[in-house]
Amino acid sequence: METTLDLLDLEADWTGEHKEIVSSVRRYVDTEVLPRMKEHQRAGTFPKDVLPGLAKLGLLEALATNSLDPVAYGLAMRELERAGSTIRSFASVQGSLVMSAIEMLGTDSQKKEWLPSLGRLEAIGCFGLTEPDFGSNPAGMRTKAEKTAKGYKLSGQKCWITNGMAAKVAVIWAKLDGTVNGFLVPTATPGFEAREIRDKWSFRTSDTAELFLQDVEVPESARLPKAQSLGSALKCLNQARYGIAWGVVGAAMACFEETRRYLVERPQFNGRPLASHQLIQSKLAWMATEITTMQLLAKRLGELKSEDRLQPQQVSLGKMNNCRKALEVARTCRDLLGAAGIHHEHHVGRHLTDLETVLTYEGTEHIHSLILGEHLTGIPAYV
Amino acid sequence: METTLDLLDLEADWTGEHKEIVSSVRRYVDTEVLPRMKEHQRAGTFPKDVLPGLAKLGLLEALATNSLDPVAYGLAMRELERAGSTIRSFASVQGSLVMSAIEMLGTDSQKKEWLPSLGRLEAIGCFGLTEPDFGSNPAGMRTKAEKTAKGYKLSGQKCWITNGMAAKVAVIWAKLDGTVNGFLVPTATPGFEAREIRDKWSFRTSDTAELFLQDVEVPESARLPKAQSLGSALKCLNQARYGIAWGVVGAAMACFEETRRYLVERPQFNGRPLASHQLIQSKLAWMATEITTMQLLAKRLGELKSEDRLQPQQVSLGKMNNCRKALEVARTCRDLLGAAGIHHEHHVGRHLTDLETVLTYEGTEHIHSLILGEHLTGIPAYV
Amino acid sequence: METTLDLLDLEADWTGEHKEIVSSVRRYVDTEVLPRMKEHQRAGTFPKDVLPGLAKLGLLEALATNSLDPVAYGLAMRELERAGSTIRSFASVQGSLVMSAIEMLGTDSQKKEWLPSLGRLEAIGCFGLTEPDFGSNPAGMRTKAEKTAKGYKLSGQKCWITNGMAAKVAVIWAKLDGTVNGFLVPTATPGFEAREIRDKWSFRTSDTAELFLQDVEVPESARLPKAQSLGSALKCLNQARYGIAWGVVGAAMACFEETRRYLVERPQFNGRPLASHQLIQSKLAWMATEITTMQLLAKRLGELKSEDRLQPQQVSLGKMNNCRKALEVARTCRDLLGAAGIHHEHHVGRHLTDLETVLTYEGTEHIHSLILGEHLTGIPAYV
Amino acid sequence: METTLDLLDLEADWTGEHKEIVSSVRRYVDTEVLPRMKEHQRAGTFPKDVLPGLAKLGLLEALATNSLDPVAYGLAMRELERAGSTIRSFASVQGSLVMSAIEMLGTDSQKKEWLPSLGRLEAIGCFGLTEPDFGSNPAGMRTKAEKTAKGYKLSGQKCWITNGMAAKVAVIWAKLDGTVNGFLVPTATPGFEAREIRDKWSFRTSDTAELFLQDVEVPESARLPKAQSLGSALKCLNQARYGIAWGVVGAAMACFEETRRYLVERPQFNGRPLASHQLIQSKLAWMATEITTMQLLAKRLGELKSEDRLQPQQVSLGKMNNCRKALEVARTCRDLLGAAGIHHEHHVGRHLTDLETVLTYEGTEHIHSLILGEHLTGIPAYV
Repeated sequence: METTLDLLDLEADWTGEHKEIVSSVRRYVDTEVLPRMKEHQRAGTFPKDVLPGLAKLGLLEALATNSLDPVAYGLAMRELERAGSTIRSFASVQGSLVMSAIEMLGTDSQKKEWLPSLGRLEAIGCFGLTEPDFGSNPAGMRTKAEKTAKGYKLSGQKCWITNGMAAKVAVIWAKLDGTVNGFLVPTATPGFEAREIRDKWSFRTSDTAELFLQDVEVPESARLPKAQSLGSALKCLNQARYGIAWGVVGAAMACFEETRRYLVERPQFNGRPLASHQLIQSKLAWMATEITTMQLLAKRLGELKSEDRLQPQQVSLGKMNNCRKALEVARTCRDLLGAAGIHHEHHVGRHLTDLETVLTYEGTEHIHSLILGEHLTGIPAYV
Repeated sequence: METTLDLLDLEADWTGEHKEIVSSVRRYVDTEVLPRMKEHQRAGTFPKDVLPGLAKLGLLEALATNSLDPVAYGLAMRELERAGSTIRSFASVQGSLVMSAIEMLGTDSQKKEWLPSLGRLEAIGCFGLTEPDFGSNPAGMRTKAEKTAKGYKLSGQKCWITNGMAAKVAVIWAKLDGTVNGFLVPTATPGFEAREIRDKWSFRTSDTAELFLQDVEVPESARLPKAQSLGSALKCLNQARYGIAWGVVGAAMACFEETRRYLVERPQFNGRPLASHQLIQSKLAWMATEITTMQLLAKRLGELKSEDRLQPQQVSLGKMNNCRKALEVARTCRDLLGAAGIHHEHHVGRHLTDLETVLTYEGTEHIHSLILGEHLTGIPAYV
Repeated sequence: METTLDLLDLEADWTGEHKEIVSSVRRYVDTEVLPRMKEHQRAGTFPKDVLPGLAKLGLLEALATNSLDPVAYGLAMRELERAGSTIRSFASVQGSLVMSAIEMLGTDSQKKEWLPSLGRLEAIGCFGLTEPDFGSNPAGMRTKAEKTAKGYKLSGQKCWITNGMAAKVAVIWAKLDGTVNGFLVPTATPGFEAREIRDKWSFRTSDTAELFLQDVEVPESARLPKAQSLGSALKCLNQARYGIAWGVVGAAMACFEETRRYLVERPQFNGRPLASHQLIQSKLAWMATEITTMQLLAKRLGELKSEDRLQPQQVSLGKMNNCRKALEVARTCRDLLGAAGIHHEHHVGRHLTDLETVLTYEGTEHIHSLILGEHLTGIPAYV
Repeated sequence: METTLDLLDLEADWTGEHKEIVSSVRRYVDTEVLPRMKEHQRAGTFPKDVLPGLAKLGLLEALATNSLDPVAYGLAMRELERAGSTIRSFASVQGSLVMSAIEMLGTDSQKKEWLPSLGRLEAIGCFGLTEPDFGSNPAGMRTKAEKTAKGYKLSGQKCWITNGMAAKVAVIWAKLDGTVNGFLVPTATPGFEAREIRDKWSFRTSDTAELFLQDVEVPESARLPKAQSLGSALKCLNQARYGIAWGVVGAAMACFEETRRYLVERPQFNGRPLASHQLIQSKLAWMATEITTMQLLAKRLGELKSEDRLQPQQVSLGKMNNCRKALEVARTCRDLLGAAGIHHEHHVGRHLTDLETVLTYEGTEHIHSLILGEHLTGIPAYV
């Protein structure tokens, strides 16, 4: 296992479980995922071929059984995102959004029906919250659920849905009598259609879809009984955002490591490596510093979550800061790689382009800064 | 013709020629180039289908006959780059590197042989200066020329060569008895091979190649007689960098316009457009300000060039500043577009990714800041 | 006259008048002002001793008679601010606010009474618009004027009034029947009191006061007849902001020159000057670039003003951009000077602290970005 | 005790000792120091009147007896710097430089002679390392020590020496036979002279001096026996830099709190507080985020130091990052305060100006980035 950036020796505090999970995810990433990414990047396809390996890691099963401590989970997300933000996003949606929704908001029979197969990746799930016109504002939801004799009838449209094409089950959020509710909708239900969003230059290796629901009928048992407000959906989002705050640290570390290696190893005409220049060293130092504070921040969020006292504004702070800093690290790395940074021989370009998506999904910087702003001032300033 | 950002009413100073050239290039871009870019972006191909239209504009012919004033040429580059940095780069290489090299450094018969067909785009040229290990440092050149009975024998490797696959003629820089010399090499000459550089995520719609020369024999008449030092090559680069300083203004303007339109037109759930938010307006204001100073800078370089007193460090200043600012504008636009910014429905993503290349080619920020630094302090600090 | 930063050879376009004004103001600054600033900075006093020299330059008289073209006026402000923002601010208030107000909004007899003595600095004027609670929002004005038998009675409070202690006459803005009006109030009028604002760490060499008006009675002839709306006051502010956009270029240039000299001349232990470091050169290059774009921007505003087509949002752009950039230049210079930058042996520290005031007076960055934002989007977003 | 910014609930981990030390230092700062700072700031004097209260806290005595854990010490520095960087600097020099030097490098009798009185602030110490021409480079030292019959004779000059005027004893670093050695020099020794450095606009409330040593004779017992290399001096510097990394967090927190209060409480003309603006909230959010990562970083350095495994490059990272971020916070606060931020009614201005000194003393950003750069690349790039 290659040494990675750990300037403040945080690894010294890892438990045995932490070491093991990092080691196994990293081995998986290095041997099974990274070698396949270039091909999928070119084709613009989600790497389904990496799922069996991911299933074997048991990460998501552990999540389903709550047997993973939050720091271990975070470290796993970090290591997964060293492969790419799309890989971590797959896991975030499957685990932190779909499985968490069922776990936190579902009935025992819903859990029994879905969690084991989702945990083993035999079934893939997606999370239908965002709608076309209201990216950052779930309050504007238009998808509707109507009570029918046997259950509910759902109609509406969802957008930018990760895992949308591959999903066997979708958690669909819809307004029932004006209140947001969550439903488990098998994607094979008549009236349910997913259409791939193509021509992305970012998140090319993610399965992204629009969902169209026209009079989709589901039985009474499809409703998540504890999901009776927008707050329930936001609770799931907070799970996912926690994982993002950890994950992007991995993306930044991967960029840094690849770039440092290139700069130290690549000799210039005078025989000295590029890394001998002051202008380059100061950028490496700046990046290493930012990555270090990202690591500390993710770790602290993990500690708070372990003690069950992680608050939404703390997650906002972590998501906002770490996504912004990760993207800036990726951009600086690209710059330092020069022309070598513009093709997919190096992974920096993929990280850079994918982090653009991560910066604005699950809440833009504006939104998170206003969430934090309200916490700091007591005054909402969203509109 | 759509109104574009011109906060300080610079267009009021345009001559009739300026208005005409902007109008004709813009029409060409809007009707012939932009509609084709998405497809080429997806395929990763250079849009050869836009060349007849470009030829018809007569831009490069005018360049060959020196009938274009520098500001008009700059405005043309700016308008071309509204379509994409790759389109402007094609023209920069063809005109400012290859045709300028022949014009400035060649014999009358070389000019007669090549300039008309290059000007009409019947022949495409490329410029072989950069080598694999010395991106920013042409002093480390390894390609060699040897005197033979009938002429010269060239061997070596060139890298990141724009127009390299399509070129009929290559300007090849090589060391002859330790001194850098320029040669006009028809690409059909035995021993000359071009290999496409694939898997780029930036400059996907540019024709980028590596050139391999193995004992390529050219006659005495292939040598550019006035190209007997690295300084000659740098003179050509300065022509190209001048065009870049203008071109990227167009990329930034295109990003800004597309984003402004989206933000003003897209209603949010409360019926107010996104552009009504302070956080968004302050970013628009910042971008408009930067674009305005980029415009002023390009214009001033043009005035100096018109009077034939443009200095290399002035070009460095313009290239460095305008590329950096254009990239920052593109990034901010992407952020403001949110998820809509990650696919190729909007052009911002293509500009953002292409500008990464433009930032570091023709001299990285480091190099240009040290050129300027030497000018300011009298002390070279390149190593 | 020492050479100053002029990377794009803008001085080549100067008229004879421009050269003369720069030369005379610069001589005045170097010989009469700069040698006195350290002492006034220490004492926190406005350098009244420099006023005779300023009067002799004839700058403000020329302003009164409209015999100065806007670029010449701008260059004068730039050269004055090389001495300090407080010196230029004195002139801005005297000329662009007070004298302009009388010139643009006054009667012939008001002009005859005040302009000559103000122009010769025999009388000093101040401009009472800002009030304690509404720094950036003149719309919230509380000062009131009441019609009396012989004229008007004014009551209210004004804050952060430059030249307030020394002024012989104050332009006081007050609401008369709900409409903003301007009045010329001799400061000796009973009920008028000015109190010095002490303990400033920025603008220590400026005369800053609070004005208290309690039933101040002025005759009918004190009213500026064309000043019957807030728009009139804003027209004066625009004059002043135009001068600020030029002035701060001088502050930045002074910082740059002083710092460049120090870095080039100061040898380190190894005999090489500090300026030989890449990290230092890249900062010099960055600053020189920003100063150059500030110069271009100021010049363009001057051209537009010469043709009488300068718009408020253009002035906002210039004020906002140039103040921010000047402050960043001053900060970078301080950093590069190290410990030497923290005392008043060098002028950088004074510029740095004074530019803090300039950044937020006459409209903060927020306000100007929203003015520009409204221009760009058509949507006001001030509240 | 007012609530302060603790977004990630780090205070929950405080030990009883931590709480007690924060509480007692904060009470001291609020009641004894802050009320006196404005007056000293105006006069440019070090507030000696606060020393009895500081002595009573027992902080420095605890340091002398090693009875303070590093986190407790760090928190104390943080709370002290809420009063001002100059107050914390006094303690840093007295404790981390002078007392640490004696503690780490001295003999038992040196410890017995000096530590108790230094700990009780009956004697003040200063640390003479920096010399006029080599701010950041102690390797260029010119001060010399010569062996004499009874001891040593020291000659040379030291610059920017905090506590230099008040000091009873100076730790003087000098070259003895080409090797750097440390000496304890009573300032009353003939040939020793301290001259105040006046006219500072930053660190006005710090006692800063130049030291002149001309044939200063000290006995053999004055030599610190374990201080026989530059490394020994650097070891002391690392102690001080550790304290700086903590201290500046307090300065940033003080600025933030004062500004937040102002923005929330100050109503605008429309009755809404300034803090209701998006542009203001996003800056508060950004500052709170940076302060939070500064807090995490300081805490982690403390944990490593507690376990005696804190490395120099880790201290560099902390000093560099936290000083830069603290200064940026202070600048943003000043901007948000508008005109109110430019006098000493608010403490922000004093923090802003003082942090300029802190940014570059004890190693500039350039130096620390190159220390970190060497650690990251294995390549020294200092010249």
